Amino acid sequence: MLGRVGVFDSGLGGLTVARELASRFPGIDLRYLGDTARLPYGAKSEDTITRYAVRCVRHLVEQGVDAVVVACNTASACALPALRETWPALPVWGVVEPGARAAVAATRTGRIGVIGTERTVLSESYPRAILALAPRAQVAALACPLLVPLVEAGWVDHPVTRLTVETYLGELFARAPELDTLVLGCTHYPVLKGVIGEVAARLCGRPLALVDSAEAITEALAPQIVESDRGTGPRRFAVTDMPSSFARVAATFWPESLPEVSHVDLTMD
Amino acid sequence: MLGRVGVFDSGLGGLTVARELASRFPGIDLRYLGDTARLPYGAKSEDTITRYAVRCVRHLVEQGVDAVVVACNTASACALPALRETWPALPVWGVVEPGARAAVAATRTGRIGVIGTERTVLSESYPRAILALAPRAQVAALACPLLVPLVEAGWVDHPVTRLTVETYLGELFARAPELDTLVLGCTHYPVLKGVIGEVAARLCGRPLALVDSAEAITEALAPQIVESDRGTGPRRFAVTDMPSSFARVAATFWPESLPEVSHVDLTMD
Repeated sequence: MLGRVGVFDSGLGGLTVARELASRFPGIDLRYLGDTARLPYGAKSEDTITRYAVRCVRHLVEQGVDAVVVACNTASACALPALRETWPALPVWGVVEPGARAAVAATRTGRIGVIGTERTVLSESYPRAILALAPRAQVAALACPLLVPLVEAGWVDHPVTRLTVETYLGELFARAPELDTLVLGCTHYPVLKGVIGEVAARLCGRPLALVDSAEAITEALAPQIVESDRGTGPRRFAVTDMPSSFARVAATFWPESLPEVSHVDLTMD
Repeated sequence: MLGRVGVFDSGLGGLTVARELASRFPGIDLRYLGDTARLPYGAKSEDTITRYAVRCVRHLVEQGVDAVVVACNTASACALPALRETWPALPVWGVVEPGARAAVAATRTGRIGVIGTERTVLSESYPRAILALAPRAQVAALACPLLVPLVEAGWVDHPVTRLTVETYLGELFARAPELDTLVLGCTHYPVLKGVIGEVAARLCGRPLALVDSAEAITEALAPQIVESDRGTGPRRFAVTDMPSSFARVAATFWPESLPEVSHVDLTMD
């Protein structure tokens, strides 16, 4: 049973997960850490991502968390084994397995699409997790490296974003026309749920089930969460760099005005 | 007089500078370091960028370089004072001053546009450098954060890139319709010179002078370069991370197939 939960992300995208947790379990004691000094993780190597993830989770462990949610899909896809090896007694959850489970529950045809960063797709962690649950499923995965910068730029409702989504989904459906479910395999993508849903429905002529990892991990954690007695639990947000775009990007992911955020220096040299 | 020259960049974009140097001075002894483990710098804070730059330049100094070119506009805009303070006897050149000089030489109307990363634009280093040379110039600067990811994705000749450039330049010309010169204030942008030139000419109804910092810094260094006697000088390329997209991105900046690249671990923890 968990009291204090750490949420680790490569940046601010993981706020979609923290927000879902905070909204479903208002009493939760939440510690968020975003590695904004080194983001984005999506195109970096597995070794580098793992090293960064271990450093960040160490900071959360020092804050006394009872469990850690790795909100970043890329870090979930690469770094879980190293994290679990480093802290064998600490529950460490990634978003890939819950996302895979939600996709298997949603699909009727067994044809599942996954979009994510380059590293998440190369890791093949979603297809592996989906096939472990549903061996007959067919999974088509596509890296969409431009969606993160578009969200970070705040171009959520922009013709460039629509054209980019059309380009990516057009490629995905050309390879796998029978998809009925699409996993949004990156914490930034739920922000684009509207345009992704519309474009997908138009390109396929039918709506697709969209799987949001923020919802999926919250669902998976529900049985283990203990909320404090106080109405709203303490929440602490920290980032490793406070870049100029911070306020705009944070507002994209936590529109109700984020509580105070502190800066922690996790370097290193 | 310089024998061995270090070129430092946040990633691979600085290859546009290294390539220009190598092509103009084939005998130069070149050491390139790209901080691919922590890129991009463009939206990070000044302190963080400075810390990364000092760490990277220390590595080049350990290689025995006689001078360092900071190819990254963002690092040039933020980190030069710290680098010069750390190594007072080492010549350290940035690309901003040479770019400003080239822009002042190119303009007829004195109206100069600058596009770059968010951090470069916020630093106001281009306007400052231009006004120091031409106090009556008028400078309009615009951050274009999506151009780097578009180049890194290899979407150089893509409708999304064209629409993005139209959006940015449309905004810039709305603010400053009389521009006759545009500084490409990021090492990635020369790759988009074609589309930027076309869109700019169409939007203004006349061609603009485009200032490329790779050419500008090479021009500025010319009097100080000593080439070795051998035909082609030694060239060493290193990066702090070897991400999956490495080959594609490197080919964008150095189409003649880059010589061997090594990985150096500059972390830190």
